[in-house]
Amino acid sequence: MHIDHLPTPALLLDEARLRRNIARLDERLRALGVNLRPHCKTCKSMDAARLCMASPQGPITVSSLAEAEYFAEHGVTDICYAVGVAPAKLARGMILRERGVRLSLLLDSTENARLLAAFAGKHGHVFDLLLEIDCDGHRSGLRPDDPELLECAAVLTRAGQNLLGVLTHAGSAYDLAAPSPEAFAALAKQERDAAVSAAQRLRAAGHGCPVVSVGSTPTAFFGRDFTGVSEVRAGVYMFQDLVMAGLGVCRVEDIALSVLCTVIGRRKSDGNLVVDAGWTALSRDAGLPGRFAREGYGLVCDVDGKLLPGLRVAETNQEHGIIAAREGMCPPLPVGAQLRILPTHACAAAAAFDAYHVCREREVTALWPRCRGW
Amino acid sequence: MHIDHLPTPALLLDEARLRRNIARLDERLRALGVNLRPHCKTCKSMDAARLCMASPQGPITVSSLAEAEYFAEHGVTDICYAVGVAPAKLARGMILRERGVRLSLLLDSTENARLLAAFAGKHGHVFDLLLEIDCDGHRSGLRPDDPELLECAAVLTRAGQNLLGVLTHAGSAYDLAAPSPEAFAALAKQERDAAVSAAQRLRAAGHGCPVVSVGSTPTAFFGRDFTGVSEVRAGVYMFQDLVMAGLGVCRVEDIALSVLCTVIGRRKSDGNLVVDAGWTALSRDAGLPGRFAREGYGLVCDVDGKLLPGLRVAETNQEHGIIAAREGMCPPLPVGAQLRILPTHACAAAAAFDAYHVCREREVTALWPRCRGW
Repeated sequence: MHIDHLPTPALLLDEARLRRNIARLDERLRALGVNLRPHCKTCKSMDAARLCMASPQGPITVSSLAEAEYFAEHGVTDICYAVGVAPAKLARGMILRERGVRLSLLLDSTENARLLAAFAGKHGHVFDLLLEIDCDGHRSGLRPDDPELLECAAVLTRAGQNLLGVLTHAGSAYDLAAPSPEAFAALAKQERDAAVSAAQRLRAAGHGCPVVSVGSTPTAFFGRDFTGVSEVRAGVYMFQDLVMAGLGVCRVEDIALSVLCTVIGRRKSDGNLVVDAGWTALSRDAGLPGRFAREGYGLVCDVDGKLLPGLRVAETNQEHGIIAAREGMCPPLPVGAQLRILPTHACAAAAAFDAYHVCREREVTALWPRCRGW
Repeated sequence: MHIDHLPTPALLLDEARLRRNIARLDERLRALGVNLRPHCKTCKSMDAARLCMASPQGPITVSSLAEAEYFAEHGVTDICYAVGVAPAKLARGMILRERGVRLSLLLDSTENARLLAAFAGKHGHVFDLLLEIDCDGHRSGLRPDDPELLECAAVLTRAGQNLLGVLTHAGSAYDLAAPSPEAFAALAKQERDAAVSAAQRLRAAGHGCPVVSVGSTPTAFFGRDFTGVSEVRAGVYMFQDLVMAGLGVCRVEDIALSVLCTVIGRRKSDGNLVVDAGWTALSRDAGLPGRFAREGYGLVCDVDGKLLPGLRVAETNQEHGIIAAREGMCPPLPVGAQLRILPTHACAAAAAFDAYHVCREREVTALWPRCRGW
């Protein structure tokens, strides 16, 4: 089947680029001697996960219990749920663990540790747990020197729970004012130092702490030394997107994901093209600050994936995208012509679809389903 | 079942508010003597559509063929697909029509009219068609005085196709610099005048043109005279959202849709709350220009739906939302506490979910599935 026959909008995944992106990070981390725990929140696909897992059983990272359940159904048994666990989700986590999945859960407060300890005590269950460390003030977690870190650990171990170690994420990598290899290397060091020093404090207090988990796609690609780190997490690296290209983490031609759409009209006033991919297909993610005027909600390629320079998705309605040229006019493409849009944010564009059409050039070679929900 | 027992994030739909919102527009348009063709792109739910359709068979508006097929399966037979049709979608449209659905299709160029005429001729099918009129330069359509309007109509009628009339949408209602009842009334007049004058030109050229379709939620609520209009379309009116409240189309307390989430942590540095609703649940729609600082990605209510003044979702990651206070600190809610987020854009927040949990206060009374895809 050729992509010309796909109903649009459709989500295309270029298999050659996907494999190259996966190989690139694999080779880098192998050379640095550190394991990868791919974050499957981006792909949400067992078929894609198979290409990046070290073994058919994992390890992987997920961002929701629905993902954990989906991957577990497909035989993955080593799963880190890397979002602070809500107490009401513990029962589902326990069920997965009782089915033989080594699911690790995350928390970052004594309050949550006590709630978890109470639940675990009531049900006679031992969870595998990670304490979340804040390495950059971006989101959540405890600072490595916070007294609460040892309190949390003490609550958990007193309750007979299995404290595996610590986890941190340099989420500020996406917001760096002046991104550069040096800036990402410095941030990767900060990320590593935070996790390693937290683990050292826990070990000094008598906790084993074998897991020291760090990662973001930029710090995974630019970190120079992962000494003391047991695993690196990264997700968007397998698809890449305009945010990553804007940060210098990849080239635009590495982006494996695109949204296939069809021209449905041309505006007479400005020659802009109207396509059938709106925000339902592209998301409203506006990408990196300051780049919207260049990249809009996505850059535009022809049906073969060749970039059409100077074009971008300037506006989106629910089912309409408006393609504008930065200078001059859009090419006068006919109604019915297909285009591919490179997404600003691969995770968000992919989330709009239930499956990938995997392709080699114009040939569709497979349909890979995605999981969804929470 | 109480909403306290729902896994989060979950999409709540307040049935009383929904019914009030529907009744409010129904009463207004009835008083003005014009029919409503509700746009079901917002709800994508047969259960919600039943409350706003004039009969079990419709009429309704949709924004994708997947919606048309879904509603047709549930017995709706009068459907307007109000997005310019791509030639490759004609076959699916024809199949629906051959099953007895009066599906009308939209186009806005002689080029597309010729493609449609060629397809229809080849398959011996007569489509019901609307010509899209541009009333405000917002998106697509032909200006009412464009010579191409009569060319299009001539191409279609020469090919034996059924030209039903014209359709326009004042999409600029969402972008008005100074929204007010008067400004919306003026825009509604502009919308009506464009559609009516286009229909008059077509009639003068010998086309019957019984359908004159206009609408957007703001112009439907503030238009004062729909003379010459056969139907008004509106979609978000049934749920309402912060964009509509910001435009003065509804009050914040009319918003029927909310995302139920759970507190999973508190940041020590600023006291901000971390909840388990990120951009997958709330979308990245930033709402009306200039209002992000007040409303962020959503305003925050307690579990009963009572607004917590001054709080907003200031940041979102994939599965994390960060709730910040405009002044001072967030209330020190415990881990596990539930909150409801009022969305900036109801269409986008609802699109993240597969179903509504319909509720009366804290009681869940029904689960209403949504359709999805294209």
